[in-house]
Amino acid sequence: MTTGLLPEGFHDRLPPVADAAARLERRVLASAYAHGYERVDPPLAEYVDALAGRLKAGSAHNAVRFVDPVSQRTLAIRPDITAQVGRIAATRMAHHPRPVRLSYAGPVLKLSASQLHPERAARQIGVELIGLDSVAAAREVVTVAIEALDAAGVPGVSIDFTLPDLIDTLAGDTLSPDRLALLRERLDAKDAGGVAEIAPQYLPLIEAAGPFDRAMARLREHTGDALTSRLDGLAAIAGAVQGKVAMTLDPTERHGFEYQSWIGFSLYAQGARDAIGRGGSYTILRGDGQEEPAIGFSLYADTLVDCDFGSDARRRLFVPLGSDPARAARLRNEGWVTVAALEDSDSPEAQLCTHVLEDGEPRAV
Amino acid sequence: MTTGLLPEGFHDRLPPVADAAARLERRVLASAYAHGYERVDPPLAEYVDALAGRLKAGSAHNAVRFVDPVSQRTLAIRPDITAQVGRIAATRMAHHPRPVRLSYAGPVLKLSASQLHPERAARQIGVELIGLDSVAAAREVVTVAIEALDAAGVPGVSIDFTLPDLIDTLAGDTLSPDRLALLRERLDAKDAGGVAEIAPQYLPLIEAAGPFDRAMARLREHTGDALTSRLDGLAAIAGAVQGKVAMTLDPTERHGFEYQSWIGFSLYAQGARDAIGRGGSYTILRGDGQEEPAIGFSLYADTLVDCDFGSDARRRLFVPLGSDPARAARLRNEGWVTVAALEDSDSPEAQLCTHVLEDGEPRAV
Repeated sequence: MTTGLLPEGFHDRLPPVADAAARLERRVLASAYAHGYERVDPPLAEYVDALAGRLKAGSAHNAVRFVDPVSQRTLAIRPDITAQVGRIAATRMAHHPRPVRLSYAGPVLKLSASQLHPERAARQIGVELIGLDSVAAAREVVTVAIEALDAAGVPGVSIDFTLPDLIDTLAGDTLSPDRLALLRERLDAKDAGGVAEIAPQYLPLIEAAGPFDRAMARLREHTGDALTSRLDGLAAIAGAVQGKVAMTLDPTERHGFEYQSWIGFSLYAQGARDAIGRGGSYTILRGDGQEEPAIGFSLYADTLVDCDFGSDARRRLFVPLGSDPARAARLRNEGWVTVAALEDSDSPEAQLCTHVLEDGEPRAV
Repeated sequence: MTTGLLPEGFHDRLPPVADAAARLERRVLASAYAHGYERVDPPLAEYVDALAGRLKAGSAHNAVRFVDPVSQRTLAIRPDITAQVGRIAATRMAHHPRPVRLSYAGPVLKLSASQLHPERAARQIGVELIGLDSVAAAREVVTVAIEALDAAGVPGVSIDFTLPDLIDTLAGDTLSPDRLALLRERLDAKDAGGVAEIAPQYLPLIEAAGPFDRAMARLREHTGDALTSRLDGLAAIAGAVQGKVAMTLDPTERHGFEYQSWIGFSLYAQGARDAIGRGGSYTILRGDGQEEPAIGFSLYADTLVDCDFGSDARRRLFVPLGSDPARAARLRNEGWVTVAALEDSDSPEAQLCTHVLEDGEPRAV
């Protein structure tokens, strides 16, 4: 019966899932807040050029657009909040000392779905550290991500690191832009034959994927001195959460890292069908032509609610007609959810209540 | 400098206002949750006909529309969440025993602004009781509204009651639809001369506006027996919050009550430039051609943040480079916000910190 009620990629969240999702989001943001990340709340839509031009290598090609009858300019519904936070940091908070720590949560809308994100109306929760993309900055952001997921009770979290611009760094000067793009694609697809055709020396990068320590050792072995400082940095970042979560490394993974620069990571959890979040370093374009480094992560609320949180028992107390309202108020203060009867025909069963107020006391149904 | 950054009627919420707004919303919804109102979270956009046809006398004329490339049908960005909640109640929760208690919060988008709502990208928080619009239902909803605002710390709350379909009830059979529409308009505008021209017997309705008890007495006096049960109902509803907040009555007010039926109310607060919310009874159209009564209220987050909440002191603890991270973690557990130095040049002042960690203890800057 629900088929056709909403367009593909859109969905309603109902009780009790919507409450669980709100609780999760609250805990994630409270955890980030304790690390100094303060909330920003940009609007649902803004000038399309303001969104599209803000992140180096970012774009707004997947945004719903419309002509604003007031300004006669094209507006875009945000497909992503990171670019909006970049705009705020680069304009209204341009004179705020760096680094700036910001957090956000809200719905985003995409014109079409991708395999990576089948949802078109999704919810994004995130944290951005603007003004730095150093190892220390990355350590902090990765720590906040893992602590926030832990505070939210997300089970079986793991992290997969990547080095989004690794192949550009290694091969940038030796290949034409076309060949480089093709090499990137083939590394992404783990197409060993294809990679060998272009640059066989990078074949070991495909093999250097897996459990973090083993993959790091292979990568160090095969890349020699060229990457020593970068790999030392990666090791230091991973060290911040080592032993707390399972860690892997997939150095050439670029899926989902459209605008990230030197460091990226994906977050996974038990029971979630896909990554529950992604993060990494990127570059914000300021209005004055300057660039600014930044690092952050986003969580995908729609994937997160798939996780296996166990079941939170609902305790609802049915308050029959004629009960003392002051007694019900005191019980709410003690943490009860009270559901008042409004008609003779109301019943605890119909209202999904676990308890009934009898002689002023809650009794299990 | 910020002029022109965003379209008219759109704005960013920055620290610390965005955090204050999130806190307020959390408290409002927690208060409603304690009365059994569970969260729903409908998507940002849906089929325009699903939105437009749901509330009797409601419409989606002010919605941003776009053609969905997947379904090839027209979608609307929600200009209001109440209609979406009505859709959920009428379809996916159609078989849930009545009344159904639901709450929600999220952004809405309007194509053009009105005098009543200058914001085009706004945030709506609300509560809906579906299946009943009795006096008992209205008492509950008004109680939840006032308790929620109290829990959120909103200062100087007052409530203004109205009877949206009063003039239709009184004059519906005696005037042509055109004359009735004109009379409604003139009552709305408090145009005594214009009202006298059409139906002088309704002039006292304009005068019966003001402090609740006085206005009720006048109204009873001038309408005789025709409205006795309705006015008794209104008195019973007001009784639920009498003595807790200031109350007024403006029986013919219709501004902002496009789809409400027999009872409506506006909420005000100290320091807010306009109403902070509105509520009332309305009718949901079910897919099967049946109608269903409902009652609820919405709060306008953008007006709410104008209220004078006093200032919440920010306590931020600067953690110098080389400090023990475990000590910082313990302090976060005790409720501190810690801001870690990431570079030698970081300072407590630049990070708006009130305290510095020295020898393992927070000291005021």
